[in-house]
Amino acid sequence: MSKVPLQKKVLSTNDRIAAELREAFEGNGVLALNLISSPGAGKTSLLERTLESFEADRRVAVLTGDIQTDNDAARLAKAGFPVRQITTEGACHLDARMVQRGLEGWPLEELDLLFIENVGNLVCPSSYDLGEAAKVVLLSVTEGDDKPLKYPSIFTRASLMVLNKIDLLPYVPFDADAARANARKVNPQIDIIDVSCTTGAGLDDWTSWFEARPKS
Amino acid sequence: MSKVPLQKKVLSTNDRIAAELREAFEGNGVLALNLISSPGAGKTSLLERTLESFEADRRVAVLTGDIQTDNDAARLAKAGFPVRQITTEGACHLDARMVQRGLEGWPLEELDLLFIENVGNLVCPSSYDLGEAAKVVLLSVTEGDDKPLKYPSIFTRASLMVLNKIDLLPYVPFDADAARANARKVNPQIDIIDVSCTTGAGLDDWTSWFEARPKS
Repeated sequence: MSKVPLQKKVLSTNDRIAAELREAFEGNGVLALNLISSPGAGKTSLLERTLESFEADRRVAVLTGDIQTDNDAARLAKAGFPVRQITTEGACHLDARMVQRGLEGWPLEELDLLFIENVGNLVCPSSYDLGEAAKVVLLSVTEGDDKPLKYPSIFTRASLMVLNKIDLLPYVPFDADAARANARKVNPQIDIIDVSCTTGAGLDDWTSWFEARPKS
Repeated sequence: MSKVPLQKKVLSTNDRIAAELREAFEGNGVLALNLISSPGAGKTSLLERTLESFEADRRVAVLTGDIQTDNDAARLAKAGFPVRQITTEGACHLDARMVQRGLEGWPLEELDLLFIENVGNLVCPSSYDLGEAAKVVLLSVTEGDDKPLKYPSIFTRASLMVLNKIDLLPYVPFDADAARANARKVNPQIDIIDVSCTTGAGLDDWTSWFEARPKS
């Protein structure tokens, strides 16, 4: 019984800090995107490919959340842009305070774009506002086309669904039309882009999507 | 600061109910297995194939946890064995009380085997004892071979890792030897079985594993 008030308090503290973050992002013209998916759906691979495609003077940075390791940060740092690891030490999601701490010492006025790679989890991260301009959910074609119905919380809140690993479609029992229809059933406004980080298909569409995105 | 005592209290209530469940399973000779994985790693497919392989008089039942839909229960019920859905209504894991309620009215003395399919989530379910004889973690080859290091909590507690979707190995950048080594790094005792629910490879090994498993 005591669980609900506590959770409310945790969330309202989070919402307060998220509002501060949002104000800071907007004030400095930073587009912040919160990437959410199951473990292994390809968030890090998508960011690797995205960072590789940028010119060296691109004003971009990455915060990447991980429960335990810094594997993802090490992979992403290879592109030469600023990357910071947030180790959640067991927590199954990022919260706004972790993001605020992760940004310490980074002058936001020097950034245009911030990718926040959430912990691999399709459930818990959806409840935590990080001050982002948009949530992006990745669904890989190896996961099953009914996932938007089974995990509606994140698909409802996401502005974009990246349907990833489409190079594997010939080998898996995945109905991409059904997946898109299921995503639109829970969120009629959701944008959808098909991508393969292996072949590069759709990466231009993904780039165009966030380049055209308003920062607030 | 108030979070830790509350979580402890929640867990100790869970542990108490889990102990009751364990006693009931052991007393009635029921092998209870708690299946945990990311969304889309193939828990439902593995159970479908397993149930299909049984004779009609097999004393088996399934509890399947889902946040929102009854898709999995509908898929599993086709095999003709008792299947019950536990809809967690937003919770990211099953807890012992949900299992206790899910079992109401099922005489345990009529069962030998109970599969508990947890919510698709590699993080939260690992902390909740459901009274099971063993936790089984599924990792699919489309997810990345470093997952045991990134999500050590579940790999440490699992008795078996099912490495699923091995038919996709030719198409994905997944090093199966590295995945096995990573799993054994966090849990030297873990059993590992390679499986493909599509081709049927390894399904006999999986069946042999749980048929040989002590019920406590």
